[in-house]
Amino acid sequence: MVIDCHGHYTTIPKRFEEYRRLQVAACTCGQPAPVLPAMASDDELRESVEGAQLQRQRDRGTDLTIFSPRALGMGHHLGDAKASQEWTVLCNDLIHRLCQLYPQNFAGVCQLPQSPGVAPANCIPELERCVRELGFIGCNLNPDPSGGWWTDPPLHDKWWYPLYEKLVELDVPAMIHVSGSCNPHFHATGAHYINGDTTAFMQFLTSGLFKDFPTLKFIIPHGGGAVPYHWGRYRGIAQDMGLPPLKELLLDNVFFDTCVYHQLGMELLLKVIPARNILFASETIGAVRGVDPETGHYFDDTKRYVDAADFLSAADRELILSGNARRVYGRLAA
Amino acid sequence: MVIDCHGHYTTIPKRFEEYRRLQVAACTCGQPAPVLPAMASDDELRESVEGAQLQRQRDRGTDLTIFSPRALGMGHHLGDAKASQEWTVLCNDLIHRLCQLYPQNFAGVCQLPQSPGVAPANCIPELERCVRELGFIGCNLNPDPSGGWWTDPPLHDKWWYPLYEKLVELDVPAMIHVSGSCNPHFHATGAHYINGDTTAFMQFLTSGLFKDFPTLKFIIPHGGGAVPYHWGRYRGIAQDMGLPPLKELLLDNVFFDTCVYHQLGMELLLKVIPARNILFASETIGAVRGVDPETGHYFDDTKRYVDAADFLSAADRELILSGNARRVYGRLAA
Repeated sequence: MVIDCHGHYTTIPKRFEEYRRLQVAACTCGQPAPVLPAMASDDELRESVEGAQLQRQRDRGTDLTIFSPRALGMGHHLGDAKASQEWTVLCNDLIHRLCQLYPQNFAGVCQLPQSPGVAPANCIPELERCVRELGFIGCNLNPDPSGGWWTDPPLHDKWWYPLYEKLVELDVPAMIHVSGSCNPHFHATGAHYINGDTTAFMQFLTSGLFKDFPTLKFIIPHGGGAVPYHWGRYRGIAQDMGLPPLKELLLDNVFFDTCVYHQLGMELLLKVIPARNILFASETIGAVRGVDPETGHYFDDTKRYVDAADFLSAADRELILSGNARRVYGRLAA
Repeated sequence: MVIDCHGHYTTIPKRFEEYRRLQVAACTCGQPAPVLPAMASDDELRESVEGAQLQRQRDRGTDLTIFSPRALGMGHHLGDAKASQEWTVLCNDLIHRLCQLYPQNFAGVCQLPQSPGVAPANCIPELERCVRELGFIGCNLNPDPSGGWWTDPPLHDKWWYPLYEKLVELDVPAMIHVSGSCNPHFHATGAHYINGDTTAFMQFLTSGLFKDFPTLKFIIPHGGGAVPYHWGRYRGIAQDMGLPPLKELLLDNVFFDTCVYHQLGMELLLKVIPARNILFASETIGAVRGVDPETGHYFDDTKRYVDAADFLSAADRELILSGNARRVYGRLAA
């Protein structure tokens, strides 16, 4: 079995995107919010994923996608806290309906109703609803709800602790995933995403967060940002700071996905990071949509790169393709 | 011959650091600035580098270091524009004196008197002084003088154009190098440095900057941040945007150094990026100071990693170790 731990609902029907546009515009202009759209019909939902995510699953031989709302669409920096709450509920309900329609293909991960300047404890009710009532198995946590200005406290700050306590209680991991950027310095998928990953890793490295939460689990997507490429740098920085080896310091709590879109990058990840810390993922359909002219295959067909890494043992391959996902997403088996 | 294109004067005598501390404190408290310290004596300068950078050159078999003031020490976000100007002149003068003392060992690269909110055109007089009067061959350009808040315009903005015009006129490249971070999200050498590199690359990728400046040259340090590891992602993003292949789009203008502190990371860089775009560098003595217990050698002894990459042709090795530096730093030969 192959579990892809990182898929987003990037093919949401247009009318929901239009609602969001009007909702954000209403916040900005002080006009009344638009009417909440009716839930998508089964046909509408099927149409949105059949030729897209589900087709790719079949084409690539992946079985289950751990599926969450579109990351760029979260837009925690847009509108206000109330708009974020309403939009989040709507997005999570759509994921839930898809998981009901395709229980063999999708397992739900929720968006959180974050908003810059608002304490993350506000996310607890929606997290509980998604996990306890809708059967979701994880959440996406945005380390920068300001959208590129990084104005809220870092991830090791007590600001986040109530949410972490709930994650531990519910036994669900969080994928660290920024949303869009309204800072002109940061291209969203090319800079802000990767920087967010690298930044989160260093926040974990320099803090005692996992002393306080020994069972808290984070997935750092996009192959861990820059981290595996600079693994020597991070090992050296930790050593210079008098910290224990990274394996001891972090690797019971921090995991990397395989969203790296070329063979040599994937092989670096697989060689540098212990197999038990790597979860297969493709972020399909996501940041890179095209076919690589050098290979004739989709850039984001990451399974091909893993398949071609012939140095992996059968046991390690099994961990990466599904075993680790089952362990890290403790509610997946249920 | 081996040219290390990335060395900083991290061993500056303490009295200059103390002056800087008082200078910044004076800005904050509105007190008069401290008296500018006397220039370092030859003995003081020798003592600061003999057992340090020069010893490492001898130990590692590198010949010439392209040498600039300490990057963390630039602190463009500290004090004010006048303080930045005075500190920059002092730092550059120290580099100049070292280059005079050790003309075979050091070639100078200058710090710029940047300050957040101040147009970079203010850097032109100091750049001209360093290049024309002191014989410097390049500069370090901080893409975020705010120190982690990214509040000035991005690198493709016309805000930067007068400085670029001068770089082109003088035939000197700029290394993109942030300084410290006062944003609690960003660990300086572990996150802000690497994020700055990745961010700059995406700013180059998404802009037509090199249409306006076809001969402008930038070195992205720290192995190009996350870029080579995610080369497939960047090729795919460019393709999705309808841009030409990265080689055509950027690689006459953008170069990566080899500050990657483990063998597998270095090999990725050397295999993914064309040899003519890679400049040997170690950033010694810099961000990572310790010895890797796995190898028994300094993490930042990057020459060992390059030497061990036996797939490099002799011609490519020569380009990486010195040929590219001679070409990119057009004034080096002189």
